[in-house]
Amino acid sequence: MLTVQEGRFLKEFEKLGEIGWVPGKGMDRPAYSASYNEAREYLHTLMNDAGMETRIDGVGNLFGRYDGKEKGAKSFLVGSHLDAVPGGGKYDGALGILAGIEVSRRIREERGPLRHPLEVVAFTAEEGGPLGGTFGSRAFTGLVSRDVPNDILSSFGLSHEVIEKSRGKKEDYLAYLELHIEQGPILWRRNIAIGIPTGIVGITRYKIDICGQANHAGTTPMEERRDAMRSASLLLARWFTWVEQRLREKNDFVCNVGVFSLFPGGAPIVPEKASFILELRSLRDEVVDKVAKTFRSFLEEMPSCRGSMELMVEKPAVELDRNLISAIEIAAQKRGFSHQLIPSGASHDASPMAHFVPTGMIFVPSIEGVSHSKEEATAPKDIICGANTLLETLLELDGKD
Amino acid sequence: MLTVQEGRFLKEFEKLGEIGWVPGKGMDRPAYSASYNEAREYLHTLMNDAGMETRIDGVGNLFGRYDGKEKGAKSFLVGSHLDAVPGGGKYDGALGILAGIEVSRRIREERGPLRHPLEVVAFTAEEGGPLGGTFGSRAFTGLVSRDVPNDILSSFGLSHEVIEKSRGKKEDYLAYLELHIEQGPILWRRNIAIGIPTGIVGITRYKIDICGQANHAGTTPMEERRDAMRSASLLLARWFTWVEQRLREKNDFVCNVGVFSLFPGGAPIVPEKASFILELRSLRDEVVDKVAKTFRSFLEEMPSCRGSMELMVEKPAVELDRNLISAIEIAAQKRGFSHQLIPSGASHDASPMAHFVPTGMIFVPSIEGVSHSKEEATAPKDIICGANTLLETLLELDGKD
Repeated sequence: MLTVQEGRFLKEFEKLGEIGWVPGKGMDRPAYSASYNEAREYLHTLMNDAGMETRIDGVGNLFGRYDGKEKGAKSFLVGSHLDAVPGGGKYDGALGILAGIEVSRRIREERGPLRHPLEVVAFTAEEGGPLGGTFGSRAFTGLVSRDVPNDILSSFGLSHEVIEKSRGKKEDYLAYLELHIEQGPILWRRNIAIGIPTGIVGITRYKIDICGQANHAGTTPMEERRDAMRSASLLLARWFTWVEQRLREKNDFVCNVGVFSLFPGGAPIVPEKASFILELRSLRDEVVDKVAKTFRSFLEEMPSCRGSMELMVEKPAVELDRNLISAIEIAAQKRGFSHQLIPSGASHDASPMAHFVPTGMIFVPSIEGVSHSKEEATAPKDIICGANTLLETLLELDGKD
Repeated sequence: MLTVQEGRFLKEFEKLGEIGWVPGKGMDRPAYSASYNEAREYLHTLMNDAGMETRIDGVGNLFGRYDGKEKGAKSFLVGSHLDAVPGGGKYDGALGILAGIEVSRRIREERGPLRHPLEVVAFTAEEGGPLGGTFGSRAFTGLVSRDVPNDILSSFGLSHEVIEKSRGKKEDYLAYLELHIEQGPILWRRNIAIGIPTGIVGITRYKIDICGQANHAGTTPMEERRDAMRSASLLLARWFTWVEQRLREKNDFVCNVGVFSLFPGGAPIVPEKASFILELRSLRDEVVDKVAKTFRSFLEEMPSCRGSMELMVEKPAVELDRNLISAIEIAAQKRGFSHQLIPSGASHDASPMAHFVPTGMIFVPSIEGVSHSKEEATAPKDIICGANTLLETLLELDGKD
């Protein structure tokens, strides 16, 4: 049975993880930085050494390609992103690219070309920032909005023209496959080797404003105050209590309030305004609509202050391709790896890719569920299981089609 | 019956209110600014023109003095502060100084010298900032801590030596009287002309930290989160509900949460830490201790996150002088002004002064209770009532002693 070459693969993984690593702080490898460029150059060299035909598109996505045996056959695209969140780990993104290179190289070394061309991609700027998340894959799939201001683009040496030129051709691709760490605790807790995402949650964000009246916090009697902090805490307590009850029945969404501020923000001033961001994520967009309605009704029933709720972000949920899910299941089965269908609570390059070509993902366990942290890790044996599942999936698909 | 000269007094009040006034924004007259110096020069000239002996001490407090008839008699000190909060109004502080000048001048013009010397003061830097609140009156009463860093002092051209030299002599003064706007809605709502504060609330501030764990807001199951925002909102909802119930029985304190922040503060990150300031004010220090204990017990009972509570500020409550309260009551009575004893929910120069010499305050109604705002106002008739009460109080005290 064909497997990846563990020693080589783990060594390369370690090497890549050193580029941008700051001891005690974690990964410093944001897109378009010097450390990012150094990391991409390392991958570029690996691809060239493996005999791939390489190119870097206008926005900075790196591709390495092996031709297929069959003339005119569509390509497999395999990969993930190379950039990292500040203070993040070595696994998020990097794993999927290196596994793509190793798997392609092993197949080539041991079996020769597949029927289909095999392309590995290192997408850029997945982790957000001024350009928005999954920027590289959105450029590739034609999903970057024309509304992105030119001055933001030019600060990265980009333009709408360059983005347009970086667009890939839909008809050239058969499937996109992305191996990624789970970034949550489900697989790790249950001791399961392979997670197979059925979909990627939609992300909806609302800006909530609670408006009362600023007042002197010593001289204004409590019963006359229109205190935005008091109203916000009563509202959020009611909301979190409702969420807890609802999730006991149906565990079909998550929510977060990670940004909160008071205006004017002085210790002796009754706050006039509380502003926060409510984030809702679900695999089912109708669930998000429904719970947002509940939040809105709580907001409208709030006494003494006036609430408003403005949609900021609305990324619909993404379903992953059923045939690819089956192929990955069969591959894990063949290799004897425990596996389970799970949702992806995080966004990935697979989100825009799924609007473009049939897309599948393979998750491996994150130790303790930790991610976006320097403590982020996956056991070497799980990395190998993930890569071998990717390898087997490609063989499976190449044989089938 | 001797009264202030309305036309002159209101005209001077209007004139002073123009210095530092920014249309649409309100007062821009912080201590040690150019507009502040201009306003002080205006008062200085008024005092000189009224035949007062004037001086400015090392920290910038302005004094104007008339001698008394009786040799060796202690002085009355009458005044308030000249600086204003950014975007504040024309009444806070300024009223008490101008009324002091007008009242002294009228007595001098119509009756000649009192038995006691009569001094008017325009204190500096009452409104807080790097030097702390009531700075000018604390310098005068020897209550500026030696711990104030030299670099803060020198940025205002000050030093501990200068502060020490600005200290007044306790034995020189018989009483301090301060006319001030109420800055709350009690008098205005009840249509009462004169408020007579019995004391000034103590102010205690705690820094509260709620510590949980930062996590990915998409991939971490809700039930596994240690979400500082969720814990903080449940805690504060419980607290505000408890406060409301308690105040229905005993209306003996107020509280405020005017500063609140989340760390790390990203929409897709479960917040690791919520930090806020809890302010408690009461005329009775033991009430503050008691309710702080209740808050602490709520903090300790909070599930899933760990709370801490650190004392930041502790200004004890101040009792005002009973004899002066009586004298002000008699004065208001004589003049036929409706009056009422009330607490002062705000701090004033009268707070440090009360530790130094017998101190009394006179409040006049704030329209709608608004203060620290460009909308701050008091009806001209109420200004005149306040000034005439101050005048009558001085006559009353000068006759008695």
